[in-house]
Amino acid sequence: MKGRLYIVSSPAGGGKTTIINLLLEELPFLRRVITYTTRHKRKNEIDGVDYVFIKKEEFERLIQENAFLEYALVHGNYYGTPKKDVFQLLEEGYDVVLVIDVQGMKQVKQIYPDVITIFILPPSLEELVNRMKLRGDSEQEIEKRLNTARKEIPFWKEYDYIVVNDNLFQAKDQIKCIITAEKCKVSRFDLDNIKDESLKSLMI
Amino acid sequence: MKGRLYIVSSPAGGGKTTIINLLLEELPFLRRVITYTTRHKRKNEIDGVDYVFIKKEEFERLIQENAFLEYALVHGNYYGTPKKDVFQLLEEGYDVVLVIDVQGMKQVKQIYPDVITIFILPPSLEELVNRMKLRGDSEQEIEKRLNTARKEIPFWKEYDYIVVNDNLFQAKDQIKCIITAEKCKVSRFDLDNIKDESLKSLMI
Repeated sequence: MKGRLYIVSSPAGGGKTTIINLLLEELPFLRRVITYTTRHKRKNEIDGVDYVFIKKEEFERLIQENAFLEYALVHGNYYGTPKKDVFQLLEEGYDVVLVIDVQGMKQVKQIYPDVITIFILPPSLEELVNRMKLRGDSEQEIEKRLNTARKEIPFWKEYDYIVVNDNLFQAKDQIKCIITAEKCKVSRFDLDNIKDESLKSLMI
Repeated sequence: MKGRLYIVSSPAGGGKTTIINLLLEELPFLRRVITYTTRHKRKNEIDGVDYVFIKKEEFERLIQENAFLEYALVHGNYYGTPKKDVFQLLEEGYDVVLVIDVQGMKQVKQIYPDVITIFILPPSLEELVNRMKLRGDSEQEIEKRLNTARKEIPFWKEYDYIVVNDNLFQAKDQIKCIITAEKCKVSRFDLDNIKDESLKSLMI
């Protein structure tokens, strides 16, 4: 594959969506692959932007065809990342980012061990709750998501990188740096980046 | 050690000195450890800035005391990096950068396997020669340094990161990103960076 695959995970309210959107604007070689889901579309959601909404039968057919890089059944709804969309972009030379949870990360890592994984942490649990309140989550949702966060945060150690989001733009710049640094890694360096033939001949 | 140790190598004319000086200005937590040498000070050089100039007997006494992280005898002159200066800064929490050659890198890696190594490449051999001409190197010096470059460049594969210096500021920013990304690595993450105790308790 020419491109690199990234996973970004974070507890709800960690800021991952905003950060990824900023990154996608700044980095033309970076693409996000949208998750497929069978759950009902909410009013404020756009098909193909927030999720690709498909029917349960179709999702289960895709599972049978081994078409997902990772998928999960959550509260009766399926969520999954289509292999085809990911591998096509990687082949074209794009870097690809998936915004998925800890369980999804583990599934992808088994199929694609070269994946680079980033965990975004909120600066505190209090701040996490504040952010959920600010965006209008209900008390019940907040309690549920806080519980999920408590379960997910201990898995930070299984990631490659950790970014603490106490400042949105700093966190975004840190992830941008991670992507830049990964491009500079000798183990992944593409000699085609060297245009000068006399130099290249010394490097092979 | 609290800080991280970096090695930057590049062929003469690769731009390493300028780049490192820019980085040292921008990153207050980064320090350069100056190489000790027994060769004569040139007119434009400053003791303690370009090199620490010491007598041959003193250098050999320091070798006996195992005081160098790495050293070499080049054209009858010693060059070496004092362990004490490096470890003291690392203990204090500074990141430390050494500007040394391929052989020095190999020696340091044996003593300190955690070192992060960066190789700076010129965009072409032609450009390397141009830069040496620009800074007033003699024909003889250029030929000698070009030969050294030809011998050193094939070792790029033994480094962690490669940076192509076709634009000084871009190359500087790439190294800055490498340093930022290394700070985000889970394997090196310092939990003391987390101030919120409820969050920290989930991470231990």
